[in-house]
Amino acid sequence: MTELTYPGGKVRLYVEAALAGGARVAPDEGQAHYLLHVMRAKEGDKISLFNGRDGEWLAHVAEVKKRACTFVCKHRLAPQTDVPDLWLCFAPIKKTPADYMVQKATELGVSALQPVLTRRTIVTRVNLDRMRTNAIEAAEQSGRMTVPEIREPVTLEKLLRDWPAARRILFCDEAGEAPPIAEALREGGPGSWAIVTGPEGGFDPAERALIRAHPAAIPVTLGRRILRADTAALAALAVWQSLKGDW
Amino acid sequence: MTELTYPGGKVRLYVEAALAGGARVAPDEGQAHYLLHVMRAKEGDKISLFNGRDGEWLAHVAEVKKRACTFVCKHRLAPQTDVPDLWLCFAPIKKTPADYMVQKATELGVSALQPVLTRRTIVTRVNLDRMRTNAIEAAEQSGRMTVPEIREPVTLEKLLRDWPAARRILFCDEAGEAPPIAEALREGGPGSWAIVTGPEGGFDPAERALIRAHPAAIPVTLGRRILRADTAALAALAVWQSLKGDW
Repeated sequence: MTELTYPGGKVRLYVEAALAGGARVAPDEGQAHYLLHVMRAKEGDKISLFNGRDGEWLAHVAEVKKRACTFVCKHRLAPQTDVPDLWLCFAPIKKTPADYMVQKATELGVSALQPVLTRRTIVTRVNLDRMRTNAIEAAEQSGRMTVPEIREPVTLEKLLRDWPAARRILFCDEAGEAPPIAEALREGGPGSWAIVTGPEGGFDPAERALIRAHPAAIPVTLGRRILRADTAALAALAVWQSLKGDW
Repeated sequence: MTELTYPGGKVRLYVEAALAGGARVAPDEGQAHYLLHVMRAKEGDKISLFNGRDGEWLAHVAEVKKRACTFVCKHRLAPQTDVPDLWLCFAPIKKTPADYMVQKATELGVSALQPVLTRRTIVTRVNLDRMRTNAIEAAEQSGRMTVPEIREPVTLEKLLRDWPAARRILFCDEAGEAPPIAEALREGGPGSWAIVTGPEGGFDPAERALIRAHPAAIPVTLGRRILRADTAALAALAVWQSLKGDW
């Protein structure tokens, strides 16, 4: 009976099933392959499980077969916790930078990832399954108890039309006069927030005007250097977490 | 005579040569290929040049041959500026994340990149040429007037032994009690700083003690979630720029 670990800590897996003392959970195919063939798990090895609702549980690997096994929940290691209520609304980017952005936004503690289609969005195909896989893997490795919600892409117009009243919009506006992010974040309580970043090349003028006209919008700048779309998103997330979030 | 642009702005190239009105500058092989075959530059096309010393210059493409051309400097577009004096001292990571980290650290306005060899550093081969290529490309696209200095790898012990007296160390300590980064950055003026982040798996206890014992060290935490080494570095850079830097 060993504890399965990788550099960085114990093996931690996200599952959909309910977790409780004695509960038996079947890993999905990818998890079974990873555990049995990559990590070479054996009967009785210890891992931890979370499902976004029931906290984190110590589980034993049982019923090891060639391509399948079962997890048996033993006891709860930690109660359920949540990240701050922070959405990232971003214009889709190319595959590899998108993988990184989803992973890093998950580590930085985003609660939902919302792809937004803008006029200058070059990438229009959004692979939600791939985003979800990246988000789950990053949640497992970062020690999060939740996986960020992956939302269906919407147009900027629809996003703003249906905007929930109490949620503030931290609008990273590259093109216009706006206060520095740290100054703008001195105002406004914690509560519900969203970071809105544009595509490579930026929002077009009509889109910028539309966002700025929204009553929830707080336009900010991230300095004078030109940041790539994914750099701007990650930088804004980090600053928000340090000033308004749970850091 | 057109202005060569890509999504995001005018073509901007870093050169080593001195820039002044009428100066003629030869692009290197990669730049010539990019301009002539990717951007299909023609005689008289406008680009901008910077060298880290003489500001940004408008230049014309001249003497176009099959594999070579010349840039002729016309007039200065902007005076020389510099980024804040902020080093990033980081344990080397794998190739693709390292490429991203160098690009993003450059966009976020780091002045020097210092690879640091630690006891748990898995990646020991550091490709300084590749780092420099990534840094130059990111400097060109971000509008920076300088390319960050790429330093030779050193051991943590040597780095701390030769540490310049007035430079503060923002030590991202995953493993121990430390104040949140935003709280720690309320103290200490602007001036010279360095962000020190560990390898995947973190610094070992003796290394942590060594850094914490250094008189310039300010240990901080970036929240309770486990961040990958490159995520931690970029997050700390963004928060530093927003609270102490030029954002």
